[in-house]
Amino acid sequence: MSYFEKFLQANKAYVDLHGTKSLPLKPKMKVAIVTCMDSRLHVAQALGLALGDAHILRNTGGRVTDDMIRSLVVSQQQMGTREVVVLHHTDCGSQTFKNEEFCYTLRERFGLDELEMDFLPFTDVEESVREDMQKIIASPLIPDDVIISGGVYDVDTGRITEVKL
Amino acid sequence: MSYFEKFLQANKAYVDLHGTKSLPLKPKMKVAIVTCMDSRLHVAQALGLALGDAHILRNTGGRVTDDMIRSLVVSQQQMGTREVVVLHHTDCGSQTFKNEEFCYTLRERFGLDELEMDFLPFTDVEESVREDMQKIIASPLIPDDVIISGGVYDVDTGRITEVKL
Repeated sequence: MSYFEKFLQANKAYVDLHGTKSLPLKPKMKVAIVTCMDSRLHVAQALGLALGDAHILRNTGGRVTDDMIRSLVVSQQQMGTREVVVLHHTDCGSQTFKNEEFCYTLRERFGLDELEMDFLPFTDVEESVREDMQKIIASPLIPDDVIISGGVYDVDTGRITEVKL
Repeated sequence: MSYFEKFLQANKAYVDLHGTKSLPLKPKMKVAIVTCMDSRLHVAQALGLALGDAHILRNTGGRVTDDMIRSLVVSQQQMGTREVVVLHHTDCGSQTFKNEEFCYTLRERFGLDELEMDFLPFTDVEESVREDMQKIIASPLIPDDVIISGGVYDVDTGRITEVKL
């Protein structure tokens, strides 16, 4: 059985809990959270979000890439969010490799002649949060009055600590 | 008070619930879920995920971009996932605009001379799921034996329906 089949099974119980309701497309809280895909972070629970509250954006590392800016622009311009929280975490997979070595391994593994890609690893998690907050501030597509905050989630305790620029 | 300050307050209660535990970096289920930022989808609840179970990747629309491939490669090669679920949803913000008009609006709003960016809107949600499943299959950085499934989440009922290629 694939995991997807398991999810479809589990989803049946959720449908009963959910019931039928029509929440608006625009989130109730005007905020988007940028964070990592890590399995040990359940964003809604850790931040106390109810269904319909906030946009949640997640990639490897919670890094602010061009795609993240694309998402934030749609979130802000089409759906009215006005605040961004950059939330990285302790013991991140993005701290387990160096980019050059990782690209070399991928070239070998997939038999590729060339591969130049930045997988955006980092060493210092507070530094990576600050770097990504700065990237949002520097984007010409993010209004100056958007509030930008940063934090680190501790995967062992569930605690979020603020990171200031 | 910013939303981030509210989240820090709410997080205090979560820390008590969480307790101290050391879950492994690699997810228990070898699967990554690619989905949308939408506030009406709480992925862990809707799919029955426990803390530590699965990688969750989210951008506007749940689209398979270069950044999504970057994330999937790290998820698979560094953390052992071997299945991907592409999950889009009904009433998506990515169905509320056309790319050309959106770029025009942004140029006007931010006083930019040029802006050519694909914000990846779509009209048919099943078609967008299939398109993104195909993008994963076509990537030279995704092993052929990775299982790829697709689905649509109904934001009114919480129900997931499978989309086949």
